[in-house]
Amino acid sequence: MQHHITLSDIEAQDKIYRLNLINSVSGYKSAQLIGTRSEAGKENLAVFSSVIHLGSNPPYIGFILRPTTVPRHSYSNFKAHGSFSLNAITADQIAAAHHSSASYPEGISEFEKTGLVAETKAGTHIPFVKGSPIQLLCSYENEYLIKENNTLLIVGMIQELFIDEGLLLEDGWVQLDKGKIVSINGLDGYALPQLLDRFPYARPKTD
Amino acid sequence: MQHHITLSDIEAQDKIYRLNLINSVSGYKSAQLIGTRSEAGKENLAVFSSVIHLGSNPPYIGFILRPTTVPRHSYSNFKAHGSFSLNAITADQIAAAHHSSASYPEGISEFEKTGLVAETKAGTHIPFVKGSPIQLLCSYENEYLIKENNTLLIVGMIQELFIDEGLLLEDGWVQLDKGKIVSINGLDGYALPQLLDRFPYARPKTD
Repeated sequence: MQHHITLSDIEAQDKIYRLNLINSVSGYKSAQLIGTRSEAGKENLAVFSSVIHLGSNPPYIGFILRPTTVPRHSYSNFKAHGSFSLNAITADQIAAAHHSSASYPEGISEFEKTGLVAETKAGTHIPFVKGSPIQLLCSYENEYLIKENNTLLIVGMIQELFIDEGLLLEDGWVQLDKGKIVSINGLDGYALPQLLDRFPYARPKTD
Repeated sequence: MQHHITLSDIEAQDKIYRLNLINSVSGYKSAQLIGTRSEAGKENLAVFSSVIHLGSNPPYIGFILRPTTVPRHSYSNFKAHGSFSLNAITADQIAAAHHSSASYPEGISEFEKTGLVAETKAGTHIPFVKGSPIQLLCSYENEYLIKENNTLLIVGMIQELFIDEGLLLEDGWVQLDKGKIVSINGLDGYALPQLLDRFPYARPKTD
């Protein structure tokens, strides 16, 4: 048996039910902490579940920023600074990572409040998350206003990658479950995937 | 120990290595089969790993279409027809689903070639994937050209949802692992997540 829900059913639901439902049904999402630094020098950290692959050459990523939700400090910071870090979230970090989505005033570092540890690297002032098995330094490239609901698609380019040993295979593929990297289910669920299989490049089946 | 890879290292790698690397490092992706029907009436099916949540009210989703890659039939079909289906991929369907990314000529149905079964529903001619625990009927709303690499962000609105019983909880949250729904690692890896935890809405921690 299936539940059948129409657009008018969705519109008639209360806000929390609708947020839970619509955030869940598009499937598993990536789980990243975005690290920035303000013009005043303060570190900022926020969970994002909308980071997507946009292209490999050049290496572009994108993510969605919702004008009505919390992490606006991240936005003003990477606009001012021109770069940000993406840090994959591990199973051990989920409680602290989720806590970073709390709305702290500007000037309060989510690192101090959540117990996550800032890691600095040579050549950049952008903070990374210590213990994250995949850390990316990205430059801010562009943004697109999605006029349907005033969200922003932010476009970034990967400038540097830091990947824990053991995850990076010979053909460049990075096995995420070797780093206990999680994915996000809806607004507030964290799940740990295990690899089932890899498939060769699909070619048409001849009869 | 960490591997440290710079943008110039990425650019110097061969294409397959770069595709594997950059497609993997942005984390787990959603796994969907997009179902369409051509103006001539033929069904089409293609794997997408870029479906994202754009908003809950109205319920918007987005996905990325790369001009240089295969599933262009899907594009011409949903532009012509105005709608498409999104079908969550289960662990049992991964081999067949991946096979649908093979480049079949227009007029060949991926349903026939992959063994996946088309399901029809009242009120629409758009095909769904039988056995998929979350099936969405979406309308095509808009598209945005990402000029950095000529990809398209397609914006769709959810018109109807069909969700298997047992996945939909009282507060509207849909527990994806109860449907054995998979996520995608890179270009060709399929992983099965298990829920670790859900967290309440994060509030600032007072000292």
